Amino acid sequence: MKRFCNHRNAIVNEALNGLVRSSYGAQLQKLSGADGIQVIVRKDWDKSRVAVISGGGSGHEPAHAGFVGEGMLTAAVCGALFASPSVDAILAAILAVTGDAGCIVLVKNYTGDRLNFGIAAEQARAMGYKVEVVMIHDDIALGQTKKARAIAGTVMVQKIVGHKAAQGASLEEVTKIAKEAVDSVKSLGLALTDCDVFEPGHHCRLGDDEIELGLGIHGEPGAERLPMAPLDELTKRVIAKLAPALEDKELVLMVNMLGAVPVIESQAIMDSVARNPFCSRVKWVIGPAPLMTALDMVGFSLTIMPAKAEFVEALQAKVAPPAWPVMVPFQSEIPTLKAPKLPETFKHASSHNEYLERLIKEGARILDENEQPLNALDEKIGDGDAGSTFAESGRQIFRALDKLPLNSPKELCETISNLLARYSGGSSGVLLSILFSAAGQNEDWKEGLLQGVKLMQHYGGASLGDRTMIDALVPALEALKQTGKLEDAAQAARAGAERTKLMKARAGRAAYVPEEQLRSIPDPGAEAIARLLEGLSKALS
Amino acid sequence: MKRFCNHRNAIVNEALNGLVRSSYGAQLQKLSGADGIQVIVRKDWDKSRVAVISGGGSGHEPAHAGFVGEGMLTAAVCGALFASPSVDAILAAILAVTGDAGCIVLVKNYTGDRLNFGIAAEQARAMGYKVEVVMIHDDIALGQTKKARAIAGTVMVQKIVGHKAAQGASLEEVTKIAKEAVDSVKSLGLALTDCDVFEPGHHCRLGDDEIELGLGIHGEPGAERLPMAPLDELTKRVIAKLAPALEDKELVLMVNMLGAVPVIESQAIMDSVARNPFCSRVKWVIGPAPLMTALDMVGFSLTIMPAKAEFVEALQAKVAPPAWPVMVPFQSEIPTLKAPKLPETFKHASSHNEYLERLIKEGARILDENEQPLNALDEKIGDGDAGSTFAESGRQIFRALDKLPLNSPKELCETISNLLARYSGGSSGVLLSILFSAAGQNEDWKEGLLQGVKLMQHYGGASLGDRTMIDALVPALEALKQTGKLEDAAQAARAGAERTKLMKARAGRAAYVPEEQLRSIPDPGAEAIARLLEGLSKALS
Repeated sequence: MKRFCNHRNAIVNEALNGLVRSSYGAQLQKLSGADGIQVIVRKDWDKSRVAVISGGGSGHEPAHAGFVGEGMLTAAVCGALFASPSVDAILAAILAVTGDAGCIVLVKNYTGDRLNFGIAAEQARAMGYKVEVVMIHDDIALGQTKKARAIAGTVMVQKIVGHKAAQGASLEEVTKIAKEAVDSVKSLGLALTDCDVFEPGHHCRLGDDEIELGLGIHGEPGAERLPMAPLDELTKRVIAKLAPALEDKELVLMVNMLGAVPVIESQAIMDSVARNPFCSRVKWVIGPAPLMTALDMVGFSLTIMPAKAEFVEALQAKVAPPAWPVMVPFQSEIPTLKAPKLPETFKHASSHNEYLERLIKEGARILDENEQPLNALDEKIGDGDAGSTFAESGRQIFRALDKLPLNSPKELCETISNLLARYSGGSSGVLLSILFSAAGQNEDWKEGLLQGVKLMQHYGGASLGDRTMIDALVPALEALKQTGKLEDAAQAARAGAERTKLMKARAGRAAYVPEEQLRSIPDPGAEAIARLLEGLSKALS
Repeated sequence: MKRFCNHRNAIVNEALNGLVRSSYGAQLQKLSGADGIQVIVRKDWDKSRVAVISGGGSGHEPAHAGFVGEGMLTAAVCGALFASPSVDAILAAILAVTGDAGCIVLVKNYTGDRLNFGIAAEQARAMGYKVEVVMIHDDIALGQTKKARAIAGTVMVQKIVGHKAAQGASLEEVTKIAKEAVDSVKSLGLALTDCDVFEPGHHCRLGDDEIELGLGIHGEPGAERLPMAPLDELTKRVIAKLAPALEDKELVLMVNMLGAVPVIESQAIMDSVARNPFCSRVKWVIGPAPLMTALDMVGFSLTIMPAKAEFVEALQAKVAPPAWPVMVPFQSEIPTLKAPKLPETFKHASSHNEYLERLIKEGARILDENEQPLNALDEKIGDGDAGSTFAESGRQIFRALDKLPLNSPKELCETISNLLARYSGGSSGVLLSILFSAAGQNEDWKEGLLQGVKLMQHYGGASLGDRTMIDALVPALEALKQTGKLEDAAQAARAGAERTKLMKARAGRAAYVPEEQLRSIPDPGAEAIARLLEGLSKALS
């Protein structure tokens, strides 16, 4: 697996440096001067209130360093990848930020963290600091016990505790709400992959048809291995196990991404969860966002908590760390705005004009007859559909013949433009629509078509000489304007189409075709224009 | 490749529904009522100013829908995955949000988008709306031309234009700054993988040792295929090509992630870029963040722009869309806080006590002799290092003998605790440190050790009967307190260690060992305590 990494042992330090230099870390600083100690501290901390300290092994970004800032954490102690920080690092953090109000240390319930944070807290106490330690155990994958692991619910506890501390509450009050939050928060995750701790040759333990329910955020095996399924089935499985963990009628829901889930999928997960009947109990939603990740794991976790007034107030409060997504009221219905009425394709009364009727019929016939030959030509240098897109445009116009305002060139051009824009599909249809659109806005339709060909060049991005239909259209329309004769236009188009044989392709697949091969083949679009005008000139003369 | 998806054709709609239901979409609504049209519109739009419309194929989330809101886009028109939205969808968006002030349409320079946005703009103009269209072409992968593609620089243009429009500028003024921004913004990307458009069986075209410089955001081939390299080399390659694209001495830098880059790696990329000498020209930084993604592509892009006052003001302004990361001043130095002085391990003056000296020497000898036998025992049920961690703790204390305050039990316990916390490594060392820490805070060291064993249970998470060293330690310390005799403690520890044979393992590797096998083996930690006390009792009696 390729990764963006200089060296596995350097990435934690580099990532923390990157954080404090990024859009997300402008309010952060690093503790310096002690070997191997990685601690992120708020720049604006004055020790006037209870300090909130958390941390653990790295690999869970933005947790925990990304949540340091007014209203959440005062400091985050960062260990090596998935390894608890040292006692000294934790003690350094406590000593750096704890004032007379004391500090609370929020610890994810893993043995290494319990022990190292625990002894550091004991040492700080022995030095006279007021320190409380609270363990978080929100993961219900292996049952609801105080021995359960901590996963994403940790971040909600940090938010609630951080808010209480920011309000100036005492250490006792902060500890009380921390314990209440810990007892109330339940999480469960599901993963499609494990995670790779920058091990060369790492091989995912899950097969292509397997997933894990009850994931661990350090790559440890999930609680259950189940078959892969469509998204709605996956969210259903998580909810079926998580929803009974709390009986409250009003819940806060947090949707966490594990590390390498594309944004579009995270949004689809959000929608899938929202469509589950369980969400009738959900009043507030946080995310979806990467909050507690596991390196490159592809997975998500859901966390729920009772929507108690004190929790809601704390979760809703604004905070400095940009990694915390705001909490918003859950919307069971999609908020919508009624779409404006689109203009009618046929807004002008139909009318007769024998000459134009013949012209359209013949034009459609000619393009239809040339569909296969032009496709065959296009196959040699392009994607082989040039004939079809022109023929389809012809068919669209032919089918609408009864509804066309044939007796008004301006209205006719406008209607054909609408028709092609809406129904033709393919870029040549839209290009022709642009051509007719300009003509439909000009009293002189021939002048309008010349304006239109300029717009085609503007929007299509091709100029004369770029080997496109422009190279036949421009001379044809100029000839038409000059003499008014279809045969002159046809002759000019033919000459233009022939000239494309010698042109280089500037775009599209033809750009990859060897120049020699191109020399025997005209641009299929230019050729289509030439054949159309030649055919019309012959049929209508 | 497993993905979170119900059906490829449903994911764009589901993801947009998820967006408006998420933390990031609380200010958004969907246009409804027209089949297949996916348009996201600000809820709070009153048409009083110039509307800013953008969009294109989906798969680039959070672009563009995630950037709708006060200060950026008024509406985003979302096509299918990597496919331009229909003319009707674009026209519907224009009609829905454009008032007398008119609208500007920002288009990424791809043929489909140029044409569809172009004809929609023409149609709206024909209906009397004031519409300007500006094409974005920031990608320098294939050279700096107006034919270049648009990638992440698009988002910076949207931000600048959105700010100008929010200020109440006229359509003419907004269009002017849009064109200036387009002419000034340059981007280049690098990818480790291509992206998978939810194709079953998709196979990445890049080998394990290949990367692409000059990526395309739709999975199209990059401009150059190069060998994989460490991160600093990769950022160097991008910068070497991108930096000469602008000669300005002061730049804004945006660091964009392509979709499936773990947060820790995105931060390491930020740091790697920041360490490049090129950054002496960088004054402002935006990101790293997913801004213009390509589904699950693993890659990043850098975008630069001159730090002109008007651009800086616009980029710095606060906006409603949470997906826009704030712009911050670039920091060439890591901001640091000096770490507090950690307490000295040996803060008490050393002193002599013959009995304790013998006790420590004998203790270290006993643990050393039992290192291999205890490891062998642990191998049967655990990770085989129980003997070594106890022996190492013994060695640490033995080596420090000259520095220990042997004549003060309280000071001695405190010093041993400090020593084990700092140097022992492994959880048994930290557990013993916790034990001695409590003893070091108590005037009666025997009572202190009993308090310590409670703390060990609190932080270690194990109770009596959980098959840990606690099961030997607790009875031993109780016996010691009662009779004061080492031999009674040894006897109690032995009995406790024997009892562990019948206990179930509640945690650690032993939890996976069949119960019958466990019955013949004591817990190695409890056995270590028993052997230590038995040995000491014998040697010192």
